[in-house]
Amino acid sequence: MTGPDAPTAAPEHVVAVDVGGSGARLVAVPRHRPPAADPDGAPGPAGAMTLSGRPVRITTAGSDAADVVAELVDTLTRQRPGLRLAAAAVSVTGLPSLVPEPGALHDVLHDAGAGATAVAADALAAHLGALGGRPGAVAAVGTGAIVLATDLRRRWHRADGWGHLLGDLGSGSWIGAHGLRAAIATHDGRPGPASPTLLAAALERFGPVDGWPAALYGRPDRAHVLASFTPAVADAARAGDLVATRLLHDAGTHLAESIAAALRPGIPPLAAVTGGVLQIGAPVTTPLEARLSALRPDVRLVPADGSPLDGALRLARSLLDERPGDGALVEPHDTWLTVRRTAGPAGTIPASTAPSTAGAPAGKETRA
Amino acid sequence: MTGPDAPTAAPEHVVAVDVGGSGARLVAVPRHRPPAADPDGAPGPAGAMTLSGRPVRITTAGSDAADVVAELVDTLTRQRPGLRLAAAAVSVTGLPSLVPEPGALHDVLHDAGAGATAVAADALAAHLGALGGRPGAVAAVGTGAIVLATDLRRRWHRADGWGHLLGDLGSGSWIGAHGLRAAIATHDGRPGPASPTLLAAALERFGPVDGWPAALYGRPDRAHVLASFTPAVADAARAGDLVATRLLHDAGTHLAESIAAALRPGIPPLAAVTGGVLQIGAPVTTPLEARLSALRPDVRLVPADGSPLDGALRLARSLLDERPGDGALVEPHDTWLTVRRTAGPAGTIPASTAPSTAGAPAGKETRA
Repeated sequence: MTGPDAPTAAPEHVVAVDVGGSGARLVAVPRHRPPAADPDGAPGPAGAMTLSGRPVRITTAGSDAADVVAELVDTLTRQRPGLRLAAAAVSVTGLPSLVPEPGALHDVLHDAGAGATAVAADALAAHLGALGGRPGAVAAVGTGAIVLATDLRRRWHRADGWGHLLGDLGSGSWIGAHGLRAAIATHDGRPGPASPTLLAAALERFGPVDGWPAALYGRPDRAHVLASFTPAVADAARAGDLVATRLLHDAGTHLAESIAAALRPGIPPLAAVTGGVLQIGAPVTTPLEARLSALRPDVRLVPADGSPLDGALRLARSLLDERPGDGALVEPHDTWLTVRRTAGPAGTIPASTAPSTAGAPAGKETRA
Repeated sequence: MTGPDAPTAAPEHVVAVDVGGSGARLVAVPRHRPPAADPDGAPGPAGAMTLSGRPVRITTAGSDAADVVAELVDTLTRQRPGLRLAAAAVSVTGLPSLVPEPGALHDVLHDAGAGATAVAADALAAHLGALGGRPGAVAAVGTGAIVLATDLRRRWHRADGWGHLLGDLGSGSWIGAHGLRAAIATHDGRPGPASPTLLAAALERFGPVDGWPAALYGRPDRAHVLASFTPAVADAARAGDLVATRLLHDAGTHLAESIAAALRPGIPPLAAVTGGVLQIGAPVTTPLEARLSALRPDVRLVPADGSPLDGALRLARSLLDERPGDGALVEPHDTWLTVRRTAGPAGTIPASTAPSTAGAPAGKETRA
């Protein structure tokens, strides 16, 4: 890997965006970087620019992820006028269910000049970040929790990721919700184990109990509000609170069971866990490892290589590779990944997909 | 009780409205009815008119209960032009937490001509309906679940009623949510007891699993959607499904624990349960009775006399009683009940509460 193009006034960049329930992040890196700063293809800080954005909102019209990406790309192009996008990839929450039209996300990136774009479910971006392109299972555990087990070719198995009302067992919203339920049960004086520690923490965080419903149900981002209490649960467990300790134990157990459910035959027995909940450490990871080892002693649990944003960046770079077919990082898939390519400024656009005045997409969108 | 006023062209009516998460109901009955049709003061069908309305919506601005009541009263006055309101009472969900200004509900009823109005939390209306004015505890178990234990004077103790994210243990939304979670866990192939019956029922109700998140999170009335699955859980239990049977058992146990938590010292050991979940019958009530008997063997569990709408009607009638103070049905309370009275057409309005041009309320609102 020698002799990258010399930098110009407007070097080409590769852009990755991660749009989640707790916020969004964009990273733009030069397409060609000195080999010393990039020994193994992993994204590094050299020449990188990062931006933060707002969380996605889920309304009756679906997710507004395209708006979040448009805002971030707009900020990028205002801060770096003349910056050219070679390729871009978006990791987005809710892709299988709540993003009504991934095409809108491609449109935003193509409108900004990107010639090749990928829109991936956050679970896939987490997979590519954590296992670096190796087949296996990755549990992405932030506000929500989903496990994707795949060979990145034809086998795709998912477990959980159904949101805070149907599942997301062991996630930040799950831990926070159960912590708040334990707090309010203590307030009510219900029979069973009480946690004055969690009650005190919740009172400090949300004010008097009578106001908690309004603080939750009036908010569009309920899962995020629930997850915001998870650090307090972790603190309570560290302080010896048994209810909180039990909650985190159950979270780890649930995550192991989701991994076991997703790792169907045909997927190599390799797994990694990534996401903010891991910051809690041993109170979650020890029961997770114990339960996974009991359910699937053959599975090797490895540390995550990188984040979902790293995975999205890896995906964006792969769009510029010349290796089609089996050499590709990952095959497009109806649910998890769509890819669109348009010809460059001097390229040729097939007549059948040429831009029309009727607003049809200018590019070719690939679904498996 | 002899010699009621002779009917006139526009007889005075007493109106009660029950505004809930699953719908609203209004009943209007003549103020004076023949004794034969009303032997014990309980509301009966004689001369009654009932209307149905939409469920309340909870948004970032709070509850729109006042709009629901306005729509129902508007329909009533259009269908019965000239009908005069002597007194009106509203039972409303979310009063302690989510109804920002009970005054707006009084306003709607006073604008319709009611001289005396009461706005009660649905838990209090359920209490007055179920125990008919006797002190004790009442569990109201519909879409949500709340227990109010009170002497209707100075002692007021609540347990649960915190909504589907924080509690409402054993309610319709709780049973439905846990049924859907069991269904989706079965779909995912998680370790543990599976319920193909609940999965089949949920697929029939909500379509393919990938669409369930959109069917839930895109809806403003999530608790109602969750509760809509409860009849399927009851059906599955009747068909012998062990997961569903266990769920209903846990629901009954939770309800007993809420009753025990609310029945603090000073409240007579009398309890009743009311609401749609009771229609499930023994699978819920047997474990409820067993757990309550274990926790509080002194408590007498009696059948509910009537519904929350009956309770609201009883409350509306009580506004016309001449017994103030200790003789009243229930004392107003900051959280649970506000009462407002204006003078009649020929009455006298004290100068201190006379209507002003500045838009101040025309009546006197009593809070304890």
